[in-house]
Amino acid sequence: MQRADGMMYAPQGKPNPVVDAGEFRFAAVGLDHGHIYGMCNGLIEAGAELAWVYDPDPIKVAAFRRRFPQARAANSEAQVLDDPTVHLVACAAVPADRCSIGLRVMDAGKDFFADKPPLTTLEQLALARARVAATARKYAVYYSERLHVESAVFAGDLIQQGAIGRVLQVVNLAPHRANLPSRPAWFFDPGRYGGILCDIGSHQIEQFLFYAGAQDARVLHSKIANYRHPQYPGFQDFGDATLLADNGATMYFRVDWFTPDGLPVWGDGRTFIMGSDGTIELRKYIDIAREESGDHLYLVNHQGMQHFALHGQVGFPFFGQLILDCLQRSEQAQPQAHAFKAIELAIQAQNMAMHIS
Amino acid sequence: MQRADGMMYAPQGKPNPVVDAGEFRFAAVGLDHGHIYGMCNGLIEAGAELAWVYDPDPIKVAAFRRRFPQARAANSEAQVLDDPTVHLVACAAVPADRCSIGLRVMDAGKDFFADKPPLTTLEQLALARARVAATARKYAVYYSERLHVESAVFAGDLIQQGAIGRVLQVVNLAPHRANLPSRPAWFFDPGRYGGILCDIGSHQIEQFLFYAGAQDARVLHSKIANYRHPQYPGFQDFGDATLLADNGATMYFRVDWFTPDGLPVWGDGRTFIMGSDGTIELRKYIDIAREESGDHLYLVNHQGMQHFALHGQVGFPFFGQLILDCLQRSEQAQPQAHAFKAIELAIQAQNMAMHIS
Repeated sequence: MQRADGMMYAPQGKPNPVVDAGEFRFAAVGLDHGHIYGMCNGLIEAGAELAWVYDPDPIKVAAFRRRFPQARAANSEAQVLDDPTVHLVACAAVPADRCSIGLRVMDAGKDFFADKPPLTTLEQLALARARVAATARKYAVYYSERLHVESAVFAGDLIQQGAIGRVLQVVNLAPHRANLPSRPAWFFDPGRYGGILCDIGSHQIEQFLFYAGAQDARVLHSKIANYRHPQYPGFQDFGDATLLADNGATMYFRVDWFTPDGLPVWGDGRTFIMGSDGTIELRKYIDIAREESGDHLYLVNHQGMQHFALHGQVGFPFFGQLILDCLQRSEQAQPQAHAFKAIELAIQAQNMAMHIS
Repeated sequence: MQRADGMMYAPQGKPNPVVDAGEFRFAAVGLDHGHIYGMCNGLIEAGAELAWVYDPDPIKVAAFRRRFPQARAANSEAQVLDDPTVHLVACAAVPADRCSIGLRVMDAGKDFFADKPPLTTLEQLALARARVAATARKYAVYYSERLHVESAVFAGDLIQQGAIGRVLQVVNLAPHRANLPSRPAWFFDPGRYGGILCDIGSHQIEQFLFYAGAQDARVLHSKIANYRHPQYPGFQDFGDATLLADNGATMYFRVDWFTPDGLPVWGDGRTFIMGSDGTIELRKYIDIAREESGDHLYLVNHQGMQHFALHGQVGFPFFGQLILDCLQRSEQAQPQAHAFKAIELAIQAQNMAMHIS
């Protein structure tokens, strides 16, 4: 399912069920972004049962059911929400619509699992936070560029083990392939996708907060541009930002849509984590002109240099943890405050961004 | 001569004289930074004759003359400046002292070639600019992280050839090995070395202006920290900045002193140049856990991906161009305005930097 533009990025892991068959049932509602395939894959590999699918567009539903024939096509969102056996609803609707779906899902007593960005405005965020508090349900977020990337998972383990000392800085370079003729209309409307810093920036900020072990941060500077796509005036093909965390660590990230045609994958995503006693570099999706496989991690610390080829070696513990969190009302997979903080900062970065050209 | 901390970084190129023996004579004045060795090497390989050396410290002079026995030890700076056969004076005095030496050199009718940073305050810069205008002499700068790095030279050639289209962004990550016990007192006094953004930041900004083809830029944000060296309160072990050029290109750079002991070279310096139609990555001094040699360039554009191993393949055209510029009063090696603009922006970044910890 991996297309060259990453829209359908849906890594395959090893099946590693944390529950028995039928013990955890979920539904897919809102199929606008292909990430829904990765979200469902991950949950199914962790033992979840995909019970329902709903989208207003029957063509999207039919395509989805070719991949996941076990999902029953619902006639309405309400039909899904009325099923008391459904624990969780996964959603990759148009970003601006995700929050209202999430509110209805939580009101129905179910947990919600949104593609990133999980919402697009601070007003939506306030509503989501309030409803999480009122319903005690989850509004989990598929920050796939860490959660669904084996080298990114392993980086977290290395940091936890103290391999690079205190994390002082995270730099993310996150190019994406535009492939614009294939994109739907909402892709060019910042009111619908949230803007480049909200959309693909939220991934980057989530990684920063996680790797730096930070609870909060401040956006110090951000900018956006539409350098080369004047035919799409609402499109933003470049953005960047720098942040300062509550624990003194800093971040810089760049997001862009300039992946050149000669790159065999959708983007040469890199993460550089500088610690007081070492560095980690992730070459997430390719090691350019070296290896066409992804998930290469380079560790340099006082002991020496190491290259880890991690594809197929680490797996994706997030999905099993999320299922158990839903069943046990715990927060192993992703603290709610962290999931919301990442998008809050991304929206702030978007709102304060300097426009350049 | 290459030490593990890069203080004595002095690449060996191929001799490629642009003048006959004795046609271009120069002197070394001010040996505080080991860069003077690289500066002299480069000029000698390009055919210059090293006539004199002067430093108030006879120990530094003796060490220098073991490497360059052809240099006659002067008793004073004046003795060098009084020699009408000397065309140019190379200087790696303490950064804060470089400008006053440069002014005397230019007043003596000679061209000046300063290690980076060529000066440390905007007041010095105004004096230097005025004296260049009044004397029509040169105040050239050894921005070695581009001028004396073969992959960095080649990157400029590729951009010139259009290999990546319009340059939209340059990201530099420039870690350095601290090796603090070996450092002289001035290394810990920002009033003497200029601060981390002035000192090693000026390199990065110079690269940005060059690769982006920009005449001017604005510093949008910068920060500095002393994260892990409280025993040296004047030391700055981290700095970063983001800039916007007059042509719309942007830059982000990080400079730091956190090279881990396990890295066999003084720093894993990287440059990422994002163009509208491709990207260039430089792994300047090592390709971590892959190759211990430096000068690896990775080009990705619409045609595909290429890895260039450039050590020994490109040479250092700057030095021969500088000699000819001095003789012919041209500006092939380094336009004066460019040399000054890089340090001007670096000082501005330093002056406006947010202090974090």
